Amino acid sequence: MKNFREDFPILNEEVRGQKLIYLDSAATSQRPLKVLEAVMKYDKEENGNPHRGSHTLSLRATEAFESVREKVREFLNARSTKEIIFTKNATEAINLVAYSYALNEVQKGDSIVITIAEHHANLVTWQQIAKKTGAELRFMYVDDQGRLPLEELHKIDETTKIVACTHMSNVLGSIFPVKEIIRKAHEVEAKVLIDGAQAVPHMPVDLQELDCDFYVFSGHKMYSLMGVGVLYGKEEILENMEPFLFGGDMIEYVYEQETSFNELPYKFEAGTQGVEGIVSLGAAIDYIREVTYPVIHEREMELTSYALQKLKALPYIKIVGPPDMEDRGAVVSFVVDGVHPHDVSMILDHYGVGVRAGHHCAQPLLRYLKVFSCSRASFAFYNTKEEIDVFVDKLDEVRRVMGYGSK
Amino acid sequence: MKNFREDFPILNEEVRGQKLIYLDSAATSQRPLKVLEAVMKYDKEENGNPHRGSHTLSLRATEAFESVREKVREFLNARSTKEIIFTKNATEAINLVAYSYALNEVQKGDSIVITIAEHHANLVTWQQIAKKTGAELRFMYVDDQGRLPLEELHKIDETTKIVACTHMSNVLGSIFPVKEIIRKAHEVEAKVLIDGAQAVPHMPVDLQELDCDFYVFSGHKMYSLMGVGVLYGKEEILENMEPFLFGGDMIEYVYEQETSFNELPYKFEAGTQGVEGIVSLGAAIDYIREVTYPVIHEREMELTSYALQKLKALPYIKIVGPPDMEDRGAVVSFVVDGVHPHDVSMILDHYGVGVRAGHHCAQPLLRYLKVFSCSRASFAFYNTKEEIDVFVDKLDEVRRVMGYGSK
Repeated sequence: MKNFREDFPILNEEVRGQKLIYLDSAATSQRPLKVLEAVMKYDKEENGNPHRGSHTLSLRATEAFESVREKVREFLNARSTKEIIFTKNATEAINLVAYSYALNEVQKGDSIVITIAEHHANLVTWQQIAKKTGAELRFMYVDDQGRLPLEELHKIDETTKIVACTHMSNVLGSIFPVKEIIRKAHEVEAKVLIDGAQAVPHMPVDLQELDCDFYVFSGHKMYSLMGVGVLYGKEEILENMEPFLFGGDMIEYVYEQETSFNELPYKFEAGTQGVEGIVSLGAAIDYIREVTYPVIHEREMELTSYALQKLKALPYIKIVGPPDMEDRGAVVSFVVDGVHPHDVSMILDHYGVGVRAGHHCAQPLLRYLKVFSCSRASFAFYNTKEEIDVFVDKLDEVRRVMGYGSK
Repeated sequence: MKNFREDFPILNEEVRGQKLIYLDSAATSQRPLKVLEAVMKYDKEENGNPHRGSHTLSLRATEAFESVREKVREFLNARSTKEIIFTKNATEAINLVAYSYALNEVQKGDSIVITIAEHHANLVTWQQIAKKTGAELRFMYVDDQGRLPLEELHKIDETTKIVACTHMSNVLGSIFPVKEIIRKAHEVEAKVLIDGAQAVPHMPVDLQELDCDFYVFSGHKMYSLMGVGVLYGKEEILENMEPFLFGGDMIEYVYEQETSFNELPYKFEAGTQGVEGIVSLGAAIDYIREVTYPVIHEREMELTSYALQKLKALPYIKIVGPPDMEDRGAVVSFVVDGVHPHDVSMILDHYGVGVRAGHHCAQPLLRYLKVFSCSRASFAFYNTKEEIDVFVDKLDEVRRVMGYGSK
């Protein structure tokens, strides 16, 4: 089998004199050479301002830009490129829906339903919309294994206008029952936004099959540069939404006191977009197709299962999230008994191992789980079992350094 | 003198079998190799998610990111890095001020004053704020040479809460009397936003000397990648503003129904920022310092003066904007008598010459000037007199192709 590590130059880095072991791909993935080369090619041969000129470089830039929109559409099986809006990150995509849809459609007496496991981007945004509109913000809670029980869906009722839910939790690793949630929400005519930031890098997503109203994700967790996100929205909903940001390219006719707006998808893309980021997203999609999702999935599941098994064998480790592989992605959060997660991360870093520590942008979840803070190892298909061996072995060292016996 | 063209790989491109002559830097500049190398170095050696981990790569990324904030602060002589907010483009920066400041501070009976020469980003945004708040949107008009007469400043009066003005017009090339505007606005306690997108690439900007309340610009017009802009705001004003986008990194404590927000500048930076774009902006600032503003200014003024002189010698050319070099930047807009600007651009493109045609995101200005549409040549210090010779010579060809005699 191909050694995919060779595609990622940064994996040869040393940190603190040790070989880098990068276990933080859920925060941001690394970029393969092909993605970087696509950006270089754009800047060395094609750069102009898209949609803003009829000279060759502007046309090359327009082609580079719009071809990615079609690539994203096809990748996610959206109906039309009108449904694919570029944003700077998944967060902006959620906020766009909040400002342009929710602020106009939600009112006092309505409810917005989310899960306790949402990333702050998909929680604080709705909380603030609830505050501004007087709507109620309701939470669906996970069980003690970090899964969302279907009984929680009763919180979606006739008052519900919006349901927002992560496809996969960035802390727990659990994959949420989004199909059931979407079905239930549509029964009561609520709109559903799915946060796919942790899903798209790891599994094929078919938007027509899912039938959600909005879907958001960011490029940098799926091998592209930072600075590019995508909002998918059903055409008929986007069509009726107010514009969000105002500026060049999103207008049709501008008079001193009146403006008519451009058609979809441009209505929501004000100003010069981050074309290099968008080009890199296109190259990242090509790269994922080259590696293929089945290969990505198989390797990541093998790594996750291996890590879970080894971690569970350590008596001082508590897993935060499902203890088994059912409906689970390549994220394992854990607490080392008696050691603050920041110390875990700092000590592991001395051995070249990068794991994240803290609240993982999910404070309400950790508070609900009565976990003050935790460590998180997240895997991509470019990681190896040998890396997991080093990571888990060094946890013994963490305990020793902090003055505990190793077992 | 150093041949700066060697720094820009794309300038060796051929288009339609001709040597590229890129005269559209006001739409987007090209990127020097050093900027591209800085991005590559980041992605091959430093990439992690800034502020989100305590492992080495996250720390390297944080350093790469935050060092640019300090570089921008120093470059523009802002008081504090708290006053430097990263956005995706200048347009988002203006919208941030509109949503977070203006929507809360402007009401019926108030006025917002802008110039007729504003880019749509700095016009439509205020027009929509005026609509939402019931405030009056007033225009200051340019004279027939495209300059803003100081008498127009009387439109700023006691009702005025916000004045928004471009530093340099992207169509006319005229530099506006921003100091006088800022002084007048402050006399009536209005806040002033200056759109510096066309200024920062060409002239040193000292924010403490200017004393404006907000200043915005984008990186891609000053040799960085697309996808990065900057909002400068005075600390005491930003401090009192509501957050705009909600998400990770802009929060302090999040509870199910309440959130407290992070301090400046993070309060306004939700989600993962476009770090590669930001890194490229830092490298672009280094590059400008290496070339130096006096060298940039001298070369660009020489090119602009040369182009103006040659264009004015053609009887079928009408200059849109100041006919001389007083308070003028490196932009020359013009109309070729009897030829639609899109045809001008298309025919010039056959000779490798890229100029922009259309409304240049300034429809109200062109309507006011009774110019349906125009062509624009814009210069950077990497252009040459020989390129201008080809460009102007080929205008004769444009006339011939369209069936006119050449003179």
